[in-house]
Amino acid sequence: MRVISYQKDGKSGVGVVIGDNDVIALSDVAPELPGSLKAILEVDPGLDKVRAASDGKAPSFLMDDVLLDPVIPEPIAIWAMALNFHTHVEETGLTTSDKFPHIFLRHAGGHVGSGQPLMCPDPEIARAYDYEGEMAIIIGKSGRHIPKDKALDHIAGFSVYNEGSVREFQGHNRQFGLGKNFEKSASFGPWLMTPDEFGDPYVQSIRTSLNGVVRQDECLDGSIFRMDELIHYISTGYKLRAGDVIVCGTPGAKKPDANDKAAQVDAHFDDAVQYAGRVHMTPGDICEVEITGLGTLSNPVEADIPPVYTIY
Amino acid sequence: MRVISYQKDGKSGVGVVIGDNDVIALSDVAPELPGSLKAILEVDPGLDKVRAASDGKAPSFLMDDVLLDPVIPEPIAIWAMALNFHTHVEETGLTTSDKFPHIFLRHAGGHVGSGQPLMCPDPEIARAYDYEGEMAIIIGKSGRHIPKDKALDHIAGFSVYNEGSVREFQGHNRQFGLGKNFEKSASFGPWLMTPDEFGDPYVQSIRTSLNGVVRQDECLDGSIFRMDELIHYISTGYKLRAGDVIVCGTPGAKKPDANDKAAQVDAHFDDAVQYAGRVHMTPGDICEVEITGLGTLSNPVEADIPPVYTIY
Repeated sequence: MRVISYQKDGKSGVGVVIGDNDVIALSDVAPELPGSLKAILEVDPGLDKVRAASDGKAPSFLMDDVLLDPVIPEPIAIWAMALNFHTHVEETGLTTSDKFPHIFLRHAGGHVGSGQPLMCPDPEIARAYDYEGEMAIIIGKSGRHIPKDKALDHIAGFSVYNEGSVREFQGHNRQFGLGKNFEKSASFGPWLMTPDEFGDPYVQSIRTSLNGVVRQDECLDGSIFRMDELIHYISTGYKLRAGDVIVCGTPGAKKPDANDKAAQVDAHFDDAVQYAGRVHMTPGDICEVEITGLGTLSNPVEADIPPVYTIY
Repeated sequence: MRVISYQKDGKSGVGVVIGDNDVIALSDVAPELPGSLKAILEVDPGLDKVRAASDGKAPSFLMDDVLLDPVIPEPIAIWAMALNFHTHVEETGLTTSDKFPHIFLRHAGGHVGSGQPLMCPDPEIARAYDYEGEMAIIIGKSGRHIPKDKALDHIAGFSVYNEGSVREFQGHNRQFGLGKNFEKSASFGPWLMTPDEFGDPYVQSIRTSLNGVVRQDECLDGSIFRMDELIHYISTGYKLRAGDVIVCGTPGAKKPDANDKAAQVDAHFDDAVQYAGRVHMTPGDICEVEITGLGTLSNPVEADIPPVYTIY
């Protein structure tokens, strides 16, 4: 089952996707359920009520006719993994513990849904704005001290995440801080896919394309700490909550072809981190992150507002 | 004006504090305003409507008769500063940029209000659980690219924050991750004080006491990046939103007396960071953070749940 958070006629809703483009609105078939996916997971962590209510029902509208929100628009916590693929560790030359996952946090203010524009910083602010294709886990059942062999019971589903990063700011200090949390710099979607439909993530691949050229392409099997270890580790200290998100890390870039000028190491950005094969995102680009068997998160890249004082 | 978020009879509310212990409930005097302080700030960033509605009104109840929530229970983003006092940089021996604030993120799942218990990790999990007394800024008016000379216009008020940290986990990798985000490890309160009442923060002091013994005591003037610089820097990349929180960093520990055994460097915790004069928190302790002219955030410390699989 695939579940989306959407906006239609200025109102937010939750729906079940059928086939390529049909959506059953939960407000039509299960009006007794809460109006947000996070609130639904709090009462229905395995989405059993959603499944029962939507089974065999007629579609309400086409997915193309709504705006997709981030799958969970307002998670309490977004736990993101640094350096969780061997290939990414190698390309950065950085070190990381082999005993503990390398964790930083993002907040929901930096997210957009699939199809919505990612914001590229103004060149006066930063010029090294990078995609990072990743798998996201969405927690259903809340828990603490979750053993590895029970971890999968706490997963409501999986999604795709583009963990957009502003390298100059990421490098301002040891903690990533603002560099991983620019306005609308990351995307999360298009849907939550339940574990029964997705199956084993570690036989699937992440493929990130920029303007149709594949820039990352690796089996999830290349990740260092697996979902059961991440859930176990985080829940050692924190009560994982319904709607919380764990973003599982990005693979290294593909080795660039000799004639692929855009993907050669480009050292003209002061203070910027760049790896061979990684190409910065700029306005007008389309960035797509596919996880095979799960779906494709696609976002146009637009110029962020100019660096002029703006009150909202 | 001082504003609290509270729970009474199982319902949350927002109130204005009068004198030592009286509260005017906004639900009594301004039922047209939203029910949470963050939602109120979204429509009333300077709290002018709150001030007008509560002016001269009779108290609704005693503050002692309610539970205090974190001042903003559900901020979108909590921006916390590492190494933002010279004395803390010195005691840690760590380096930090002198050009950019050193930022990491916390999430709201780790907060409690004043008077509510902070959770000390089970000793099997970690033993170096430390207070860090800090000033918190609460954003009122949303903005991007806020110049330093307009930064104060975006502040709705100030509060006190105990940025409780689990040192062993903080040291698992370069990013602080889980070590700064344990369940109920930090506290935030007791109230928001508006800028007109607090005045210039940089003539006031932070004093952190554990069981009545003062462990941190420094003028806020010792902080490196000031509130106008923090607001300017963060808003370079991110739209600061009503209810967002900026936690401004902790001073170093006081030099311990020769006969203060608890405050000597204590090296018996493997992998733990400890500084002379800093004393870990343990169950049964009372930790108080006072900012002069603002108020005192006081929390008992209790043992967290034992490390046994728990489903919620």
